[in-house]
Amino acid sequence: MAVHTDIGFDELGTVLAAYDIGAPRSFKGIAEGVENSNFLLQTDRATFILTLYEKRVSADDLPFFLSLLEHLARKGIACPQPLRTREGAQSMVLKEHPAALLTFLDGLSLNRPRAHHCGAAGAALAALHRAGSDFAARRANSLSITGWRRLAKSIGARADSIESGLGELIAGNLAVLEDSWPAGLPTGVIHADLFPDNVLFMEGRVSGLIDFYFACDDFYAYDLAVMINAWCFEPGGRFSRARSQSLIASYAKERPLSAQEIAALPILARGAALRFLLTRIQDWLEHDTTALVRPKDPREFARHLRFHAQVQSAAEYGA
Amino acid sequence: MAVHTDIGFDELGTVLAAYDIGAPRSFKGIAEGVENSNFLLQTDRATFILTLYEKRVSADDLPFFLSLLEHLARKGIACPQPLRTREGAQSMVLKEHPAALLTFLDGLSLNRPRAHHCGAAGAALAALHRAGSDFAARRANSLSITGWRRLAKSIGARADSIESGLGELIAGNLAVLEDSWPAGLPTGVIHADLFPDNVLFMEGRVSGLIDFYFACDDFYAYDLAVMINAWCFEPGGRFSRARSQSLIASYAKERPLSAQEIAALPILARGAALRFLLTRIQDWLEHDTTALVRPKDPREFARHLRFHAQVQSAAEYGA
Repeated sequence: MAVHTDIGFDELGTVLAAYDIGAPRSFKGIAEGVENSNFLLQTDRATFILTLYEKRVSADDLPFFLSLLEHLARKGIACPQPLRTREGAQSMVLKEHPAALLTFLDGLSLNRPRAHHCGAAGAALAALHRAGSDFAARRANSLSITGWRRLAKSIGARADSIESGLGELIAGNLAVLEDSWPAGLPTGVIHADLFPDNVLFMEGRVSGLIDFYFACDDFYAYDLAVMINAWCFEPGGRFSRARSQSLIASYAKERPLSAQEIAALPILARGAALRFLLTRIQDWLEHDTTALVRPKDPREFARHLRFHAQVQSAAEYGA
Repeated sequence: MAVHTDIGFDELGTVLAAYDIGAPRSFKGIAEGVENSNFLLQTDRATFILTLYEKRVSADDLPFFLSLLEHLARKGIACPQPLRTREGAQSMVLKEHPAALLTFLDGLSLNRPRAHHCGAAGAALAALHRAGSDFAARRANSLSITGWRRLAKSIGARADSIESGLGELIAGNLAVLEDSWPAGLPTGVIHADLFPDNVLFMEGRVSGLIDFYFACDDFYAYDLAVMINAWCFEPGGRFSRARSQSLIASYAKERPLSAQEIAALPILARGAALRFLLTRIQDWLEHDTTALVRPKDPREFARHLRFHAQVQSAAEYGA
């Protein structure tokens, strides 16, 4: 989330007319996430997030994301709830963008999670997988293995402008991943982007999961592999087996992992590292300098990718 | 305000330890203003703004700004109040930046003020001038006429890279202003940047004034001239005499304007237009592409400057 599109007093009036949410008390653009424009709206009744969906979220996918949030909340998952307009719609159009109004969740995201936080977040992921297992809608993962080849092609030689050797690293790993990507693992709705930014904590417990705009159908174990990348490296780049062990064990307590899923973790983690390396390179190269967020450094995931490429078995993750 | 410096969970812990403000519930970077990094902090007791002061606010000036806010609030002006740390300090240091925690004010800023809003904001400016009249500290206006010459020099020929003819416009007006800038007008603490962004409204009334980080000693009427520039032009660039008339009349009801002050308005408004033209050009040319705000278009103030340059008397502003 960020602020790519300005929303002023006039557009806010449109929002307040569409929803039965009380009188406004404050309205601020917030600098959070990357893809969408987000605003914090406080009324005399509650606090809300107004999200304007920018280029990466397609209007066609919006009903999937918003219905998923409604489904998950009914199942007891603490996630943002889309409000319905007075006419019952899940979303509206503001300044030519699809827009939704969502409940605001209390909580703070951690920038340096410890092992017990990784455990709590892992359990929350498993609960999310269970709660989503009977969600009817389907959405293919456009950023899975077939998408990586396309992304790598569009980036081409420009990868080496960021760090010499990145192009070769990508090509080599992509070839291995295409040869050995698993099939037939348990599949369902995954979050696909559960970084520490997207997990809110209150007093050491998970108080909410946010930013479901990469959610899709894919292997559950791939979601765990994303978290191994996102939660289990120290700021300097060192892998923390203690964090990974806590993450995997707590996940498995809520949703047991099969032997196939565990065996696949190194290749899935390698794939997840490549996925974030590629999209971060793309964001870096195509950075809209007028947007209100910095692109993240792609090289972090090059280091992760090199790490996973030398992992021999999931035991090295503490599984 | 914006987010130039990231503040994470760890730094937040430092803040929570320093102030007696309760337990945190949420913490978000907000995309507001330009100069500083700002965060919205909600605790179980209240909502606060954490501000990290970036390059344009000098640590030496901070006691002036923060003490001014304390003084104004004691006099009944609705403005952010700096909290004192447990040890009584007005500010602290976070990530090598001076930082302060301020009370949060409810209200919404307008992007298209109408004449009656201009009147309400003008009355609030006069009340601010009266409340600040016995404030003891002094701060020279570094962005007044002597500063413009320096700024114009540092910009030099680069002005024409934004719009052909801007360099000449600046030089010509600077010469006239240096020849005819008034002296001896009533002087005191002014806000110096009271744009619609910095005035909060609730139900049509002013609920707060914010962003005092250009406050300084200068002519009171110059502050009004800044508002003529900031509040009285339509989005397309047309001057609104109705707004200006309402602004000036409401101001004068709270703090009567002398004949000298009224007569000086055209030259003061011309100076204010040049001041914002110059700083916007500087921001445009030196835009930090990693910061989280867009620089504002300087050309808007070139149009205002041309308008004020042909004004014959303050009667054209409705005074």
